[in-house]
Amino acid sequence: MKMYKEMTKQELAAEKAAVTARFEELKAQELHLDMSRGKPGREQLNLVSDILTTLQTPTDCVADGLDVRNYGELTGLPAAKRLWAEILGCKPEECFIGGNASLTLMYDTISKAYTHGLLHSEKPWSKLDTVKFLCPSPGYDRHFKVTESFGAELITVPMTAEGPDMNVVEELVKDPAVKGIWCVPKYSNPDGIIYSDETIRRLASMKPAAKDFVLMWDNAYCIHEFDSEFVPFKDIISLCREYGNEDMVFEYASTSKITFPGAGISVMACSEANMKYMVALLGIQTISYDKVNQWRHVCYLKDKKHTLALMKKHAEILRPKFLCVLNMLEKEIAPLGIAQWQKPVGGYFVSVNTNPGLAKRTLALCKEAGVVMTGAGATFPYGKDPQDSNIRIAPSLPPVQELAAAMEIFCTSLKLAALETMA
Amino acid sequence: MKMYKEMTKQELAAEKAAVTARFEELKAQELHLDMSRGKPGREQLNLVSDILTTLQTPTDCVADGLDVRNYGELTGLPAAKRLWAEILGCKPEECFIGGNASLTLMYDTISKAYTHGLLHSEKPWSKLDTVKFLCPSPGYDRHFKVTESFGAELITVPMTAEGPDMNVVEELVKDPAVKGIWCVPKYSNPDGIIYSDETIRRLASMKPAAKDFVLMWDNAYCIHEFDSEFVPFKDIISLCREYGNEDMVFEYASTSKITFPGAGISVMACSEANMKYMVALLGIQTISYDKVNQWRHVCYLKDKKHTLALMKKHAEILRPKFLCVLNMLEKEIAPLGIAQWQKPVGGYFVSVNTNPGLAKRTLALCKEAGVVMTGAGATFPYGKDPQDSNIRIAPSLPPVQELAAAMEIFCTSLKLAALETMA
Repeated sequence: MKMYKEMTKQELAAEKAAVTARFEELKAQELHLDMSRGKPGREQLNLVSDILTTLQTPTDCVADGLDVRNYGELTGLPAAKRLWAEILGCKPEECFIGGNASLTLMYDTISKAYTHGLLHSEKPWSKLDTVKFLCPSPGYDRHFKVTESFGAELITVPMTAEGPDMNVVEELVKDPAVKGIWCVPKYSNPDGIIYSDETIRRLASMKPAAKDFVLMWDNAYCIHEFDSEFVPFKDIISLCREYGNEDMVFEYASTSKITFPGAGISVMACSEANMKYMVALLGIQTISYDKVNQWRHVCYLKDKKHTLALMKKHAEILRPKFLCVLNMLEKEIAPLGIAQWQKPVGGYFVSVNTNPGLAKRTLALCKEAGVVMTGAGATFPYGKDPQDSNIRIAPSLPPVQELAAAMEIFCTSLKLAALETMA
Repeated sequence: MKMYKEMTKQELAAEKAAVTARFEELKAQELHLDMSRGKPGREQLNLVSDILTTLQTPTDCVADGLDVRNYGELTGLPAAKRLWAEILGCKPEECFIGGNASLTLMYDTISKAYTHGLLHSEKPWSKLDTVKFLCPSPGYDRHFKVTESFGAELITVPMTAEGPDMNVVEELVKDPAVKGIWCVPKYSNPDGIIYSDETIRRLASMKPAAKDFVLMWDNAYCIHEFDSEFVPFKDIISLCREYGNEDMVFEYASTSKITFPGAGISVMACSEANMKYMVALLGIQTISYDKVNQWRHVCYLKDKKHTLALMKKHAEILRPKFLCVLNMLEKEIAPLGIAQWQKPVGGYFVSVNTNPGLAKRTLALCKEAGVVMTGAGATFPYGKDPQDSNIRIAPSLPPVQELAAAMEIFCTSLKLAALETMA
């Protein structure tokens, strides 16, 4: 197979005819496949369903002498803090255990920055004329939307293979209106890369002009290897502490892709000074989070070692799906020179960068043929990909057979989109 | 027994000596009893612990064809909406099913009013110089603290035996800076009264100057009779609709005192226009709430009839506790003319109004003798009871025997506090 750009006009026309014919065949199958969101598949849900019967009697509901069925313990069960501290590498007293969604804890942090200010804020952000927020892109649309929703100006920062482009970040944080940055440091959403040690160190040691700058450290995939042994990861809070920046960072994680998506527990980790400040604010909105579910999770997951063993089983289910996607891309797209991608070994996504101008059209064709993917542009601030290039593939939900069908549609659509501009 | 104010100096001195002696005896018992919060007791927790095993297998986790173990359904499971709609008397599509705390849904409403504005707001409340909020008092401290936390000016509205003093409310809402009112319409916290039909109608038909005035309708005790058959209650949304006010009200409830406190499900009910507006904002902070727990609750509670039958069993446990409190007050305090109280048949509190100036001292004496109660003043805005009179008694947590001991300490403390001012 030749690269498209090396083909003659005649070759391109022939290829286009062939690809179009194949596209019509695929479309005629009238499939309805969803690769839009990083939802675990049914096999993964079944894998962890024993958690349902972890707690069965009143006696089961006593944790460290405390009846988890009643009100109280705003910051979470001590046992849940110990579990998360072990996984994240921080201290139990730096952990706040939340409800079913870490996104909500992130939202709460930004929301309180706007309504009350953060620990080192001079005033609530709602009282400022301009708030800017750094968005390494491609990135996670839901992160960007949180800050967009409050009216922050979103600044795109290019992603490299080592994480956010730190030369750009270090320049931007000289602006006191720049109040924070969104990061998914391990198996970044969507590229699936791990921030390099140097990038992490440069982030931890920044001296932003804004005293209340916040490093939003969404460690969503902290133990989510699907094709690798567990990759140890430095605790960001201690690292920030080394540089006198311990109040700059909030870290988040959840069990959404460990047990049940949307029915797990979440954690926010931060310095003890930040904790004290945030707990005073969070104590206004709730008496306590769902401790029955916290205890259910602790009893089911036990400790880091046991949790990592469970993640190996998730990996067994996920690996064939990711390999299906990566192999199809390698076989169908790589030779044509129309797109590039990383080869992640963890996380929930494969991020494809097409040649400029092909993303929207590719996804429109996918949709026409029955495959729903994350919308084009979603991985950029305001949903606008300046290159119209990035496409996020989420292989976790469909069974491998459906995935193969969906990927054939995707590859055919991408080829057709490219050929439409050339032939 | 004579009323204290009718006693001679000598009689008062004798009484004071006797009460002081008794107080010292009680203090010497070194009890540690907690009547500070409306926490259900262990017997109630055990009553509902079968909910733990309601869902046991993957097959159990399918609701209306939907796998509750995965992401999705931001507004909640249809079955959970049907259950709450039946209990509250509204429509399923007017129900938003939240996480473990209705307080969080109330906070979210106020928070979004500040950051984004409500449906009919001209601008976010954070952009206004003054926001005033009406606080019928005595009332629920956590309500008041939500609005206080955002910097609203809290306006005390007197409570009557029929609910908030509507003559005062109707006058105050002429001020466009008055943006809302906190209400616990059934078994109000703490008085335990039910708002009269006329009060409710006057609330529903108000025409506040603020177009985005919000009636915060916390129906926390909607089915929480402990000494009465279920008292039917008019749906506030339809009632507001009759007066063209359907967007004025948000209603809240939860299963915190039906199943497990702090591990249940909550509901926010509002007009469909409000729902559409709020869902767009809530969709930024979460993908969905814990549907496994929603479904667990639906399977366990089934429907209104079955839930009311469960509430009868809670009532069996609660009634002796409330009767203990009310009987002690009747026997020990009523003859002395030093306090008044309502005799609630539902809810979680008994609210005692002492003669002015006795509340703080009474509670200090209680504490000295080992009984912790809700802090004096807590039932008023800013924690300041202008009369220093209201005391909230929460009888639900301790077993009856401990409660009797605690009430003896309370009555003795109250007598002593009164006598200290007289003898």
